[in-house]
Amino acid sequence: MTHSVEADSERPRHRRSGGRAARREMRLRTVVAGPPFIRRKTPVHAVLDEEGLTRIEATSDRILAEIGIEFRGDEEALRLWRRAGAEIDGVRVRFPMGLLAEVLSSAPSRFTQHARNPANDVEIGGDGVVFAPAYGSPFVMDLDRGRRYGTIANFRDFVRLAQSCPWMHHSGGVVCEPTDIPVSHRHLDMVAAHLTLSDRPFLGAVTAEKRAEDSIELARLAFMPGFLDTHCVIMGNVNVNSPLVWDGTMTGALRAYAAAGQGVVCVPFILGGAMGPVTNAGAIAQAHAETLAGCALAQLVRPGAPVVYGNFLSSMALRSGSPTFGTPEPALGSLVVGQLARRAGLPLRCSGSFTTSKLPDAQAMQESTVSMMAAVNCGANFVLHAAGFLDGLLSMSYEKFVLDCDFLGALHSYLGGIDTSDEALAFDAFREVGPGSHFFGCAHTMRHYETAFWDSDLADNRNWESWDEDGGLDAATRANARWKRLLAEHEAPPIDPGTAEAISDHVARRKAELPECWH
Amino acid sequence: MTHSVEADSERPRHRRSGGRAARREMRLRTVVAGPPFIRRKTPVHAVLDEEGLTRIEATSDRILAEIGIEFRGDEEALRLWRRAGAEIDGVRVRFPMGLLAEVLSSAPSRFTQHARNPANDVEIGGDGVVFAPAYGSPFVMDLDRGRRYGTIANFRDFVRLAQSCPWMHHSGGVVCEPTDIPVSHRHLDMVAAHLTLSDRPFLGAVTAEKRAEDSIELARLAFMPGFLDTHCVIMGNVNVNSPLVWDGTMTGALRAYAAAGQGVVCVPFILGGAMGPVTNAGAIAQAHAETLAGCALAQLVRPGAPVVYGNFLSSMALRSGSPTFGTPEPALGSLVVGQLARRAGLPLRCSGSFTTSKLPDAQAMQESTVSMMAAVNCGANFVLHAAGFLDGLLSMSYEKFVLDCDFLGALHSYLGGIDTSDEALAFDAFREVGPGSHFFGCAHTMRHYETAFWDSDLADNRNWESWDEDGGLDAATRANARWKRLLAEHEAPPIDPGTAEAISDHVARRKAELPECWH
Repeated sequence: MTHSVEADSERPRHRRSGGRAARREMRLRTVVAGPPFIRRKTPVHAVLDEEGLTRIEATSDRILAEIGIEFRGDEEALRLWRRAGAEIDGVRVRFPMGLLAEVLSSAPSRFTQHARNPANDVEIGGDGVVFAPAYGSPFVMDLDRGRRYGTIANFRDFVRLAQSCPWMHHSGGVVCEPTDIPVSHRHLDMVAAHLTLSDRPFLGAVTAEKRAEDSIELARLAFMPGFLDTHCVIMGNVNVNSPLVWDGTMTGALRAYAAAGQGVVCVPFILGGAMGPVTNAGAIAQAHAETLAGCALAQLVRPGAPVVYGNFLSSMALRSGSPTFGTPEPALGSLVVGQLARRAGLPLRCSGSFTTSKLPDAQAMQESTVSMMAAVNCGANFVLHAAGFLDGLLSMSYEKFVLDCDFLGALHSYLGGIDTSDEALAFDAFREVGPGSHFFGCAHTMRHYETAFWDSDLADNRNWESWDEDGGLDAATRANARWKRLLAEHEAPPIDPGTAEAISDHVARRKAELPECWH
Repeated sequence: MTHSVEADSERPRHRRSGGRAARREMRLRTVVAGPPFIRRKTPVHAVLDEEGLTRIEATSDRILAEIGIEFRGDEEALRLWRRAGAEIDGVRVRFPMGLLAEVLSSAPSRFTQHARNPANDVEIGGDGVVFAPAYGSPFVMDLDRGRRYGTIANFRDFVRLAQSCPWMHHSGGVVCEPTDIPVSHRHLDMVAAHLTLSDRPFLGAVTAEKRAEDSIELARLAFMPGFLDTHCVIMGNVNVNSPLVWDGTMTGALRAYAAAGQGVVCVPFILGGAMGPVTNAGAIAQAHAETLAGCALAQLVRPGAPVVYGNFLSSMALRSGSPTFGTPEPALGSLVVGQLARRAGLPLRCSGSFTTSKLPDAQAMQESTVSMMAAVNCGANFVLHAAGFLDGLLSMSYEKFVLDCDFLGALHSYLGGIDTSDEALAFDAFREVGPGSHFFGCAHTMRHYETAFWDSDLADNRNWESWDEDGGLDAATRANARWKRLLAEHEAPPIDPGTAEAISDHVARRKAELPECWH
């Protein structure tokens, strides 16, 4: 699972003529492709016993049966729930005990999301772990220009950076908000960017049912005729309006994806003390009810539609009331949520690298690492927000993106687990080396040293003197140079010219049909 | 388990007269004492199954029986092993199957290390988790003066900083090397600093049997007469000279501590590919053999002497051959080591916050957090190096120390586990709030918001505008201001004047007896 990635080698290059220097360059530029996704071998970290899990599930059941969830602005959703046997009171839906479990029995526990390039298909569920970039920031940041509103140029940069990272598996969705494009047209440009600048799977629009349908139609063009009708090639990440409300905008998008047999990720975002209780167990019980209701609605639309149990817990700063991320309570909460999702038999989405820091500094990576370790240890199958966030959820940072990507590489090794084969136990090496010697040149070391350890090329692990002679740069400054080189050297993945034209034509036609709207 | 600590409130202050401003100051300066140690409620993360564990243990047994361990320069150790039934061949000791397990049956699975202040006694083993500062750096660093050799003034600073941190439980040992003191006198000044500037438990010298004995005699002075003879009040952290060698210097110190009924922590330091195999399973099997042999030797010296199963795995950078820390393989390895230590029935020492970064930057906290999370998730009872390291193991950083201390606070909440009581499940809050509202002012939130979440006062979680108006400081710059304020405001814990004088006299007498030696 361990691969070394040279600093400037993320894309294949044409052979150049020349002597030793050219050969050396070729070697440096050798492509090291990461795996399309991870099959984890490291077991999950379960923290709650059967009694604790049952108590949370029972609380969810009571919330669903006694308090219920409101489905606002979506008559079709209410109709589906009524037909399924739920109790409808205005927009409030109450779920008799056992109803959701019955409806969810048609949901697959794992499914494949297909990519334009079949080598990049990902499996979501089971032992699969899929990393996707952060989603939804209105701002972008870098060390040179600070914070400003995101543009479609920034959006395309982040799609390219994700594509250039061998440890990223998915192109994500709204990698930043392209605020220079009319709101009514953004989804078209975003989906087109994912389809043409990346050849990995991606997320479509959820801001309106029609935009979800547009996303699906655009995605359809990148596959063989009819392929989308029988395969999941796009997903929508839909949010609960916690507490206990599903808005019609979101359920409209949910229904569009489900009706087309495409993926739906249902995500409650609970800031404890605001959109849910301040106590972890209560917030988890609420989130469990909310996400199960969303996943079940997708099954009512189309039994068997791929759904993902999503979760996003966060905490609050006592003194400021600000949301906090990468804190211990949501990390613990994620570990419980993983247990609940597996008991529900659904693939799990968790959130990756979160921080409230406004710079790619010590705070940023301390918080992000706590958050990311919880996501992988809890057994998340789809890790959204795996790279890029700073500033709460408000800014996408170029430097943080490449720092996070480097850590995703490390996580490939972490999730590779412990090998206890005879070769790994190395008894022959002890015979060869014996007490008081060293293992540098022994046969066992020579057989394994190239793949034994994750070898970051962004971390500086040289001695102080070498580091100091090279200017004594901090990690953020190195990351700044890294993203610039990656973008400068980036080559888009190949795409069939007819497909590219069809996508471009479709975008142009829809833009002409849709009035420009900025709100 | 969650406490909020105000920025400048680590020590009690005398009440001042005055009006509202004075009362506000009092409130800000209220002491929030942390617990003397943690009793973990979050279960450990076990990653290896029975078969895998058995295979590692069997490899250790073969190493011990067929290859053996050398005990160099310690005739007494060889004599003890011969008497216990081991096979002696020169300095090579081979252990018949089952011998170590039999010898180790007298070792306690948990014990108390007593502090000068009984409120700070720590339990090492079981569900106890004890954090101690980093140990052994020749250099110190701060953002103002960069890197330089450590001095006794720096040493005392770090003892004070540790004492001022409510989330640190232990004063540690060589918090930095005081290179301005003759080597032959250092242990006296170091132990005296721990005994007078801290009132927490600490580690004594291990660089010679006589220095270990000096450390014990000094410690004796801080307790009631006879107390040390029946209680553990000091420990020595002794290192294996991996692979498979115990040096006489270390076993001499080990025997001194064990003979006095004091604690011994046995620690193999294995840089994979150098002092052990490059493969995790092999390095773990070797470490298991080495530490068990050390712990067993202490039992031969004095059955029932408190011992701690230590471990320190690290990896290597492929390109430079440099050691790397905070990488995924040692993190996984720690999780396995935790399982092995529990099966052996011994308390576990692991290593905390490691990084090769030369600055308190993004790399530093990313690597440190991986390392620290592994230490707490694996079930370590004594976490050495929990704060301060940068630059491999070579530098103790003032800024990194306070950044790490802040994270130790977060870990108190993390290890507090998930409460699934009715009150935590908050069903009444759902009844009160219902769908589409918020939990800000509800009764349940009012009852819990002050203690619900870990609330760092070093992380900046304000919005971008507030942070920017305040100068847009990064975490390292804030940490720089923090340690200066902590040292400026620090007041040493009270000590009986007679005790202080006895310690001072003892140090002066021994310094006069011991020739100054700088090597």
